[in-house]
Amino acid sequence: MKLEGKVVVAQGGGPTAVINESLVGVVLESRKFPQITKVYGAINGVRGIVNEDFLDLTQETTNNLERVAVTPSSALFSTRDKPDKAYCQEIFKVFKAHDVRYFFYIGGNDSADTVRIVNEEAERSNYEFRAIHIPKTIDNDLMLNDHTPGYGSAAKFVAQSFIGLNLDNRALPGVHIGVVMGRNSGFLTAASSIAQKYPDDGPHLIYLPERAFKIDRFLSDVKRIYDQHGRCVVALSEGIRDEAGVPIIERLGTREKDSHGNVSLSGTGALGDLLTREVKDKLKIGRVRSDTFGYLQRSFLGCVSDVDQREAREVGEKAAQFAIWQNVDGSITIHRTGYYSVDYKLSSLKEVAARTKLMPDAFINAEANNVTEAFKYYLTPLLGSNMPSASMLRAPRAEKLLQK
Amino acid sequence: MKLEGKVVVAQGGGPTAVINESLVGVVLESRKFPQITKVYGAINGVRGIVNEDFLDLTQETTNNLERVAVTPSSALFSTRDKPDKAYCQEIFKVFKAHDVRYFFYIGGNDSADTVRIVNEEAERSNYEFRAIHIPKTIDNDLMLNDHTPGYGSAAKFVAQSFIGLNLDNRALPGVHIGVVMGRNSGFLTAASSIAQKYPDDGPHLIYLPERAFKIDRFLSDVKRIYDQHGRCVVALSEGIRDEAGVPIIERLGTREKDSHGNVSLSGTGALGDLLTREVKDKLKIGRVRSDTFGYLQRSFLGCVSDVDQREAREVGEKAAQFAIWQNVDGSITIHRTGYYSVDYKLSSLKEVAARTKLMPDAFINAEANNVTEAFKYYLTPLLGSNMPSASMLRAPRAEKLLQK
Repeated sequence: MKLEGKVVVAQGGGPTAVINESLVGVVLESRKFPQITKVYGAINGVRGIVNEDFLDLTQETTNNLERVAVTPSSALFSTRDKPDKAYCQEIFKVFKAHDVRYFFYIGGNDSADTVRIVNEEAERSNYEFRAIHIPKTIDNDLMLNDHTPGYGSAAKFVAQSFIGLNLDNRALPGVHIGVVMGRNSGFLTAASSIAQKYPDDGPHLIYLPERAFKIDRFLSDVKRIYDQHGRCVVALSEGIRDEAGVPIIERLGTREKDSHGNVSLSGTGALGDLLTREVKDKLKIGRVRSDTFGYLQRSFLGCVSDVDQREAREVGEKAAQFAIWQNVDGSITIHRTGYYSVDYKLSSLKEVAARTKLMPDAFINAEANNVTEAFKYYLTPLLGSNMPSASMLRAPRAEKLLQK
Repeated sequence: MKLEGKVVVAQGGGPTAVINESLVGVVLESRKFPQITKVYGAINGVRGIVNEDFLDLTQETTNNLERVAVTPSSALFSTRDKPDKAYCQEIFKVFKAHDVRYFFYIGGNDSADTVRIVNEEAERSNYEFRAIHIPKTIDNDLMLNDHTPGYGSAAKFVAQSFIGLNLDNRALPGVHIGVVMGRNSGFLTAASSIAQKYPDDGPHLIYLPERAFKIDRFLSDVKRIYDQHGRCVVALSEGIRDEAGVPIIERLGTREKDSHGNVSLSGTGALGDLLTREVKDKLKIGRVRSDTFGYLQRSFLGCVSDVDQREAREVGEKAAQFAIWQNVDGSITIHRTGYYSVDYKLSSLKEVAARTKLMPDAFINAEANNVTEAFKYYLTPLLGSNMPSASMLRAPRAEKLLQK
């Protein structure tokens, strides 16, 4: 039996380079069904729902939708609101008033949790309703998923950045520290390893939040590499923490918190500057620099993995198909079926919601300062078919005539 | 009469995304002439010359040269050495010993000055010798040149970054401050203006080193924009200074200097963090973030203007042609002849060397917090034919049913 009514689609959490692909996948697929009376886009995520701030995407041109699809960041804007039960009841009240029967929420694990609560609310009220969570996060930290839409493109940006930083550091040697997003999971920082093409290419050291960060160990690592190569490129996650689990950045007194109780890690160069000072003071190395990738890595226009782009579109399409054809709820998950092929499943919201996937041990080296080949094998197809690479001169040295 | 002997090519100063195009232009063009006995590449700029550290690029494959051409950063590595007279005499001694008759130095105005001194040394010794300076700098601050190779690609990176930062800031509102390279010239920071596509797009404020930066004026500008749009994106040059000419970053005590006596501005997030604190404390705005573009903007792999790429190749080719066909010295300069076409000339080294081109007044608005349309007209062709742009949803608002 066909369930007639409106669709609401919304975007939550941090933007990605391909999150609008998923939005457009939902909109174009939903618009094909006669039982879908309207397709609404909620402005600013769940906040737009309670405020009835909707765009009528049934009246958006396909041409503009396709252009929005290749535009980074959330076209419907976002929110950091994490609805509690009362908030979800407000959402549900609006849905009922507007005869919304399908809800698609594109976001991370917090968004999955919101979908779960709204769904329970509908069940309790015997309101026929389908709600599906559509994955996205550059952090690649959603349970069950082989990887998440948004990760491949952000990883491509990080990889291309470190290819450049490594070349720059080779041209003008010193120590360079690149700080990459990632509170708990090191997947994005680990993507820097793609820059390790020629034998002495950096990043020579990679530190991830999955392993305790010891300053002394870090300094002796840097010293060893610097003594060997006359230079050292370091990649590290903004979320690195000490053995007690305290983020290194908290030592600086940066303690602004969001509504989820998370300390603000991005939007400041403080962690990189702290470690720069450590290296300068303790190792007496003159040229030490750091770059904090900040928001560039998640919103840069023009650095997208074509594989990521296609998959982000497909998870949106699949969500609409699952809900409208099959009348089922859940979270769309991506599963690797070959090298390289994937399939999409509908998984339980409970299993995805509010949990975090970390890098498996097999992806991190024993010294906790680099990744393994298994990780590179995992990552490579996600970077897409348009991943560039660097080349060095290989001409022979000319004979010296004066300094024999 | 043909002047037989070796070619030496070298790269100086900060890397760019297309500096290797110029290198490859010199090498491929020089290799065509029978009177060129060898083409040497000096490793680490002038330092490689005095140390006789040469790669024999006559023995490099054309295929690898073409791949190196599209690789960012200086393939021959660089140096910050600024030779004095004694240093130039050492250079000249090596050139004589190796029968070097042609010297091409790819760099900024300091490199042009080095070429000038070496040339004078050769003239004094009656040594037949041609030395040509090939322009490059992301700062776009070389005299006589309409623009410099390297600028278009760095400008494209800055523009694409701000397109993304503006979208990100629209999705999750607040104040965002992006800090761009540029010690004296604001050309690179000004490229952020390309992100101003839709009426309320950022950067809403652009501050350049050509105008005195007043903190109070900055705060009132930010407040006005924030009150109007509920958000504010700011672009500013790392070299912004107060009315006394003191760089704002110097107030922080960051005083590391290079061999040219320049204060180190990059490789730290300090300026962005300082201004972030000012906005938070004085304007009581909660969400304030900054990103310092750092080394990403000059070495990122995969963000190149095709116009910049072609011109960088051509200045290398033209340098070899001027020196070998016409037996003349000087600095290659780029002149705009139409919209959009250019021509290359050989100009006097004295006019290019050790001087800095600033943004003309016509490119900066009267309030000193944005650029003019004249600047965008100037910049647009330099970004190349592959410049992407962002698109927003334009669907109509849906009617509210509960909150009438």
